[in-house]
Amino acid sequence: MFHLYTWKTPNGRKPAIALEELQLDYVVHAVDINNEQQFQPEFVAISPNSKIPALVDDANGLKIFESGVILEYLADRTGKLLPTSGAARYETLQWLYWQVGGLGPMFGQLAFFANRAKEKIPLAIERYLTESNRLLDVLERRLAASPYVGSEDYSIADIAIYPWVVSVINNIPQLLGDLAATRPALKRWMDSVAARPAVVKGMAVLNDYTPDARIA
Amino acid sequence: MFHLYTWKTPNGRKPAIALEELQLDYVVHAVDINNEQQFQPEFVAISPNSKIPALVDDANGLKIFESGVILEYLADRTGKLLPTSGAARYETLQWLYWQVGGLGPMFGQLAFFANRAKEKIPLAIERYLTESNRLLDVLERRLAASPYVGSEDYSIADIAIYPWVVSVINNIPQLLGDLAATRPALKRWMDSVAARPAVVKGMAVLNDYTPDARIA
Ligand SMILES: N[C@@H](CCC(=O)N[C@@H](CS)C(=O)NCC(=O)O)C(=O)O
Ligand SMILES: N[C@@H](CCC(=O)N[C@@H](CS)C(=O)NCC(=O)O)C(=O)O
Repeated sequence: MFHLYTWKTPNGRKPAIALEELQLDYVVHAVDINNEQQFQPEFVAISPNSKIPALVDDANGLKIFESGVILEYLADRTGKLLPTSGAARYETLQWLYWQVGGLGPMFGQLAFFANRAKEKIPLAIERYLTESNRLLDVLERRLAASPYVGSEDYSIADIAIYPWVVSVINNIPQLLGDLAATRPALKRWMDSVAARPAVVKGMAVLNDYTPDARIA
Repeated sequence: MFHLYTWKTPNGRKPAIALEELQLDYVVHAVDINNEQQFQPEFVAISPNSKIPALVDDANGLKIFESGVILEYLADRTGKLLPTSGAARYETLQWLYWQVGGLGPMFGQLAFFANRAKEKIPLAIERYLTESNRLLDVLERRLAASPYVGSEDYSIADIAIYPWVVSVINNIPQLLGDLAATRPALKRWMDSVAARPAVVKGMAVLNDYTPDARIA
């Protein structure tokens, strides 16, 4: 049995999608980051960085945080969603790292300065808008040349990137505009990933959460 | 033979350290990011995200960008600097992802707003100073409990984190202050990593670069 400690954010949904794709048994533990539950000692013992998501595998006692390694672990554990060796493995992983080190942090900073910051700071908004647009152009070119981001096959790289693009569509609509018109390859890929039943289920993780549920 | 496309920055030095530790043969190709060489078509063909570092392995034609996967690839290729399987592998990798997704981007944003931005914006400086300090506290606690960041053994997680802490010491000295007094475990670890001959060599990559050298 797997235990997923998570919240309804892009990083939090990635492992839920992977667990659904792989049809693994898992229990979801809500860590309400709007109510500081990421700083509770029970959670910090699993995730010393106080961020969601984190994963515990009952089979071997493994506890890991960081969504990228959680995806890599689940893929290696099952031999699915990531080539097990050879060039294709690393070509896929490079896009996973690209999401973790680039797309995620930059979209996150943009959402902060464009939406949540109490002051609107043009220099900061401009900085992250420019970089986010550049990253989306990189993704568009990749998807114009390849059916999926990592390779010919759907993989953990797609799982890592999809929830972040959804989050941009929902939270920073001015960034993407009419996707079909401006980034047709991205639109084609978004539609194909969105249609996967496991993606629908994983994206809905904790949508029915009520504050009574606690880290169990 | 390996070809390392890089520049004298924290991300650029990581693979040079790993190649030195593993005593692999490699050629360094300078990509001068202060002179826009990251946008040259020859380089974009290897690194579509236009960032350094990137690696080419002549043995199998593999081309990869993103420093995290380059470290993972070199470790897997040699069976060194990362446990080949089991819990310890993923516990080590989680700290590599933590550097790529957290420490690197946050230190990078802090350096931009504290040093390079043409306006000094208190809200932005404060945001990244607070998060950088928090990340350093996470690292201090980890190193108070473990000789190296990933596990008992020196690994690619240490290689990924060390150049970033050096960069903070050099560029944002106000963040760290007197390391021995404020973060003794970090200081102990920094001294032990700094003393490794491969680290000394890898950190010096391209220090003797002159603008005549071009992407070859
Ligand atoms: N690089 C990390 C990022 C994790 C992250 O930023 N999680 C956010 C939610 S998406 C969080 O826990 N925020 C709470 C906080 O920062 O206190 C990963 O990919 O897992
Ligand atoms: N997540 C990437 C980050 C790479 C990165 O940000 N590289 C910087 C230098 S440290 C770069 O190439 N900057 C040039 C640019 O942004 O145009 C990695 O770990 O490789």
